[in-house]
Amino acid sequence: MIIELKSSINETRANEIAADVKAFCIHYEGKYTLITSSSVKELDAKYHSEADRVTVLNDDMQLSSRAWKQETRLIDINGVKIGGNTNHTALIGGPCSVESEEQIEQSAQLMKELGINILRAGAFKPRTSPYTFQGMGVDGLKLLAKMRDKYGLQIISEVRDATNVEDLIEYADIIQIGAKSMYDHGILKRCGKTTKPILLKRGFGTTLQEFLQCAEFILAGGNPNVILCERGIRTFETKTRFTLDLCGAAWMKQYSNLPVILDPSHAIGYAYGVPDLARACTAMGVDGLLIEVHPNPKVAKSDASQQLNHDEFRALTKTLKGVAEAIGRKII
Amino acid sequence: MIIELKSSINETRANEIAADVKAFCIHYEGKYTLITSSSVKELDAKYHSEADRVTVLNDDMQLSSRAWKQETRLIDINGVKIGGNTNHTALIGGPCSVESEEQIEQSAQLMKELGINILRAGAFKPRTSPYTFQGMGVDGLKLLAKMRDKYGLQIISEVRDATNVEDLIEYADIIQIGAKSMYDHGILKRCGKTTKPILLKRGFGTTLQEFLQCAEFILAGGNPNVILCERGIRTFETKTRFTLDLCGAAWMKQYSNLPVILDPSHAIGYAYGVPDLARACTAMGVDGLLIEVHPNPKVAKSDASQQLNHDEFRALTKTLKGVAEAIGRKII
Amino acid sequence: MIIELKSSINETRANEIAADVKAFCIHYEGKYTLITSSSVKELDAKYHSEADRVTVLNDDMQLSSRAWKQETRLIDINGVKIGGNTNHTALIGGPCSVESEEQIEQSAQLMKELGINILRAGAFKPRTSPYTFQGMGVDGLKLLAKMRDKYGLQIISEVRDATNVEDLIEYADIIQIGAKSMYDHGILKRCGKTTKPILLKRGFGTTLQEFLQCAEFILAGGNPNVILCERGIRTFETKTRFTLDLCGAAWMKQYSNLPVILDPSHAIGYAYGVPDLARACTAMGVDGLLIEVHPNPKVAKSDASQQLNHDEFRALTKTLKGVAEAIGRKII
Amino acid sequence: MIIELKSSINETRANEIAADVKAFCIHYEGKYTLITSSSVKELDAKYHSEADRVTVLNDDMQLSSRAWKQETRLIDINGVKIGGNTNHTALIGGPCSVESEEQIEQSAQLMKELGINILRAGAFKPRTSPYTFQGMGVDGLKLLAKMRDKYGLQIISEVRDATNVEDLIEYADIIQIGAKSMYDHGILKRCGKTTKPILLKRGFGTTLQEFLQCAEFILAGGNPNVILCERGIRTFETKTRFTLDLCGAAWMKQYSNLPVILDPSHAIGYAYGVPDLARACTAMGVDGLLIEVHPNPKVAKSDASQQLNHDEFRALTKTLKGVAEAIGRKII
Repeated sequence: MIIELKSSINETRANEIAADVKAFCIHYEGKYTLITSSSVKELDAKYHSEADRVTVLNDDMQLSSRAWKQETRLIDINGVKIGGNTNHTALIGGPCSVESEEQIEQSAQLMKELGINILRAGAFKPRTSPYTFQGMGVDGLKLLAKMRDKYGLQIISEVRDATNVEDLIEYADIIQIGAKSMYDHGILKRCGKTTKPILLKRGFGTTLQEFLQCAEFILAGGNPNVILCERGIRTFETKTRFTLDLCGAAWMKQYSNLPVILDPSHAIGYAYGVPDLARACTAMGVDGLLIEVHPNPKVAKSDASQQLNHDEFRALTKTLKGVAEAIGRKII
Repeated sequence: MIIELKSSINETRANEIAADVKAFCIHYEGKYTLITSSSVKELDAKYHSEADRVTVLNDDMQLSSRAWKQETRLIDINGVKIGGNTNHTALIGGPCSVESEEQIEQSAQLMKELGINILRAGAFKPRTSPYTFQGMGVDGLKLLAKMRDKYGLQIISEVRDATNVEDLIEYADIIQIGAKSMYDHGILKRCGKTTKPILLKRGFGTTLQEFLQCAEFILAGGNPNVILCERGIRTFETKTRFTLDLCGAAWMKQYSNLPVILDPSHAIGYAYGVPDLARACTAMGVDGLLIEVHPNPKVAKSDASQQLNHDEFRALTKTLKGVAEAIGRKII
Repeated sequence: MIIELKSSINETRANEIAADVKAFCIHYEGKYTLITSSSVKELDAKYHSEADRVTVLNDDMQLSSRAWKQETRLIDINGVKIGGNTNHTALIGGPCSVESEEQIEQSAQLMKELGINILRAGAFKPRTSPYTFQGMGVDGLKLLAKMRDKYGLQIISEVRDATNVEDLIEYADIIQIGAKSMYDHGILKRCGKTTKPILLKRGFGTTLQEFLQCAEFILAGGNPNVILCERGIRTFETKTRFTLDLCGAAWMKQYSNLPVILDPSHAIGYAYGVPDLARACTAMGVDGLLIEVHPNPKVAKSDASQQLNHDEFRALTKTLKGVAEAIGRKII
Repeated sequence: MIIELKSSINETRANEIAADVKAFCIHYEGKYTLITSSSVKELDAKYHSEADRVTVLNDDMQLSSRAWKQETRLIDINGVKIGGNTNHTALIGGPCSVESEEQIEQSAQLMKELGINILRAGAFKPRTSPYTFQGMGVDGLKLLAKMRDKYGLQIISEVRDATNVEDLIEYADIIQIGAKSMYDHGILKRCGKTTKPILLKRGFGTTLQEFLQCAEFILAGGNPNVILCERGIRTFETKTRFTLDLCGAAWMKQYSNLPVILDPSHAIGYAYGVPDLARACTAMGVDGLLIEVHPNPKVAKSDASQQLNHDEFRALTKTLKGVAEAIGRKII
């Protein structure tokens, strides 16, 4: 249940009521808002005069639901806008990992050349094996920040675990919580205390319900700027690395007020299928796409098989514009 | 291994060689072609002079593979063409089940109005419960045939099991083998003996490898006209009915020479998501789409939740044309 | 809803009521019983005086549910009994396929030696590839029947599709419907017309709900002798061939009145794990086990990797007896 | 590749070689051992004289593999021993969460009464919803430690994320890494620096390969005391909460040298099935079982549906002893 208190209610009083009804208290759009467990279905009559609106919800997808807030949230990344009524589909490109200054600068130049605003690359890699490349760490983040300053790009990079979340908050413009870290309460709680946009990737074994509930941890912590990212779920099929869940994307668009970004590169895991899938994602009318592109995929230190080369990426972006226009949207 | 014999080799000799190398013998594009198990990797030298080409393959995806036949097969459904170099994306619309003459005639008229060539509807329904509507049977097929004759449409309907495959061969223009019947050897073998186009739906628990191997049963039986249909696989996610596997569709386009059709209606199971998914499928550049549409979905005797109404379907088809054009294809 | 009519109600009257309430009518334990769709929740008052008991059910698991019939059904296979209050765990052993008289006779002798009553082997194989061994067909069934007569064993073999169900009814003592044929309405309906015991294997992509509903097709057809068999479901894990669903087995024991048999051999697909799993299955307290054993697994024409050899099988059966005794059951 | 250096090689030299061959260096059983990526298949000849043994491995399951170390590792938890050649199956019982001193003391007394050595309970709960009970935190750990001292029990509790791993190292005798935290590099790396036993639970969307690779992070960090725990994977089946993967348990027993513990309570999620499953797990011959038991399950603050009550647990443990004896093992 979400209880929006009147704007005249001050912090002390809001906290009093929150304590009594066992609710979270957040300050949102100029007023205090309380969120109880979804099992609570009624607000004590004595508080009715202090509340503007009370929304009873079926499950613990509350602040993220259209049942509470109909319109898609607008996320402003230092002026780059997605969601709301923008009809923007933001391309986010870059390599799997920062590997060197030369490499990441080539990526930054490519984004600049194509009018793309957001550069992605990993610095802390949550690899499956301890015996392979684990990322450049803070040095990688510093190189990304350098590219931001030099090329006027927004930077997105992944937090690996709760020990490096401060580094991401310091250096990144969007903090990516990866599929393997999605349940990490240390990360979720800390990200609730910042207002930087958070791109939350769905775990590959995670239901949509659980995914939205993880987003709720951030929202309930006080950060309204959460973006959902579907990047493929694990199924019995092994010819492709994962299975991109576009039925799930349709569900999120229908029931959640959070912007949705899709990641076809990680989903299929092979470059051959990325262009077709990226066009499909664009035709879904989503708020953005994450696509891996590397100056020389063959020598990439991670995810070599799924990264496009620069020419493939240039060719792809052209076709995406046409698909976006056909459905009344604009690639940014 | 596929052994294409020289065109001078006659049936008797072809069968002799087939018996010796333990191969299937089919007559394909004017010559005899032998297919052995994929574990056979070499043709005895004594037969080399009688073969035009020998293709060694990694697995039992043989006649359906691009490794053997690079170009997509052209399927001609009484003049309606898909695959090959047509760049056609064929819409196939209609209700889940034939329920009455009035109902199926409304569907036929809608297809006619929108310039769509193929009408779908089930007559023999493989329902999950014995206690619900099981379809109109042969009477349903007769109504479909009547609509074909009256409106100049092609008819596709589903075979339920080996006891009714003859009925489908008699009445339908395309025989649909459903997700639950995909492994049915009685059906697969009989469908190999006709040349009517077969639309083979992937089982919801079926790997791509197994799916293509089922197609091989039909191809090896002598019927070259097989179309693959992805209609959603079963995963852990239950907010949607199934998960449409577009990564799998990308894989099929890359590795198989069979045309690919997608069925977003059965995949998501809810009408709200069908338009977005149908646009995504179109942007994949596939050869066709199966979409369920009913004059009055609320009273449909099966799959009520996923069928579009006529106005929703009209609106959808318009947007599909724009998406198809953006990628150089044409909706038919 | 299940309506048990009074024993005084004759067939004509039972059919009249069935027609009026849109129900199936079966003759079961000396009286007529009607089954409606589970969406029907009330019997018209005018029929109350003709009914002994009316059971309203939540879903289309009706005749198979403990909600209707509390005790486990007793299945009598020509004197070999499982289910009911027997506390029997029946071992069913034999090779994947009948390959020759010599081979199947060795298997029959092994069963005889170990006091096992039921011999399994496939004659019609639903293989995934058309280019490999497809089974001996009716000749295989005749060899099995010969072993039955010579060694006093019960015979179980698999129906592949609706075109060969009559052969199985003629030759087998238990008709196995395999995982790939589980939805085959041609088979299910025909098996409802016999009273031979049916072992219905769960499809590897099939939910428990759907599985029980397929059993309902047979029960509603009039055959009360259905045994459920869990043989592994398809999951994301590929180190083993399938994942044996013992949680599902616990659910079936709790909610269904049908006996449950487990097949560890097909589940894991590798002989190394079969003994541990077979002991686990026995400790579950189920009604039987299907285990593949071959005189010489290395040369088996199908499923070579998962079949035990005769010595491994002898060693295993000894330990199963101890486990069964520990939980108050008896291996037969 | 694992390179066991001669015992005469000192730390400085070991590190030199490690740096040159890009390997991890750990001190294990009295000598330095180097581990490279599994893609390295050969040791430079110049180092041959300094190595005792070089083991080339297929994948990044190295220190955990029987290919390197045949016998199961012996884990000594302050005198309570599992693995090795003990043939012990350790019961680990207790509630989902510590809720109060009274509650956890009742649990401790039950363990004492039944001769069970290890008490489990969560203090930091990684809940799916932010709006429900999140655990007692450090206060819960302190209550557990009190029970250890008062009743002579070993204590196992779960680390939630990298921000509370130090608390667990301080208070627990076995540190449990839960299914949702399994990929957490902050936790894995820190746990590699202690020598306390680590119980690593398999993520419900995690392949066996990835699971073992996470164990490698701890082993490669220098902690040899890792126990694997299978607790159910997520599949399409929803009648039960998860699917206990006993095929996977058989695989782990066959290929890994780490002890294996099974958790039937979380797998099925319903108390009715826990006894049958616990007996099945015991019959698998594994090294331990985790079972949830609560003084009054109905009022439990988390996982109410799956916890046994004390009488059910007493009855269960009796039957487990018989099953264990039947296969030559001993419940401790």
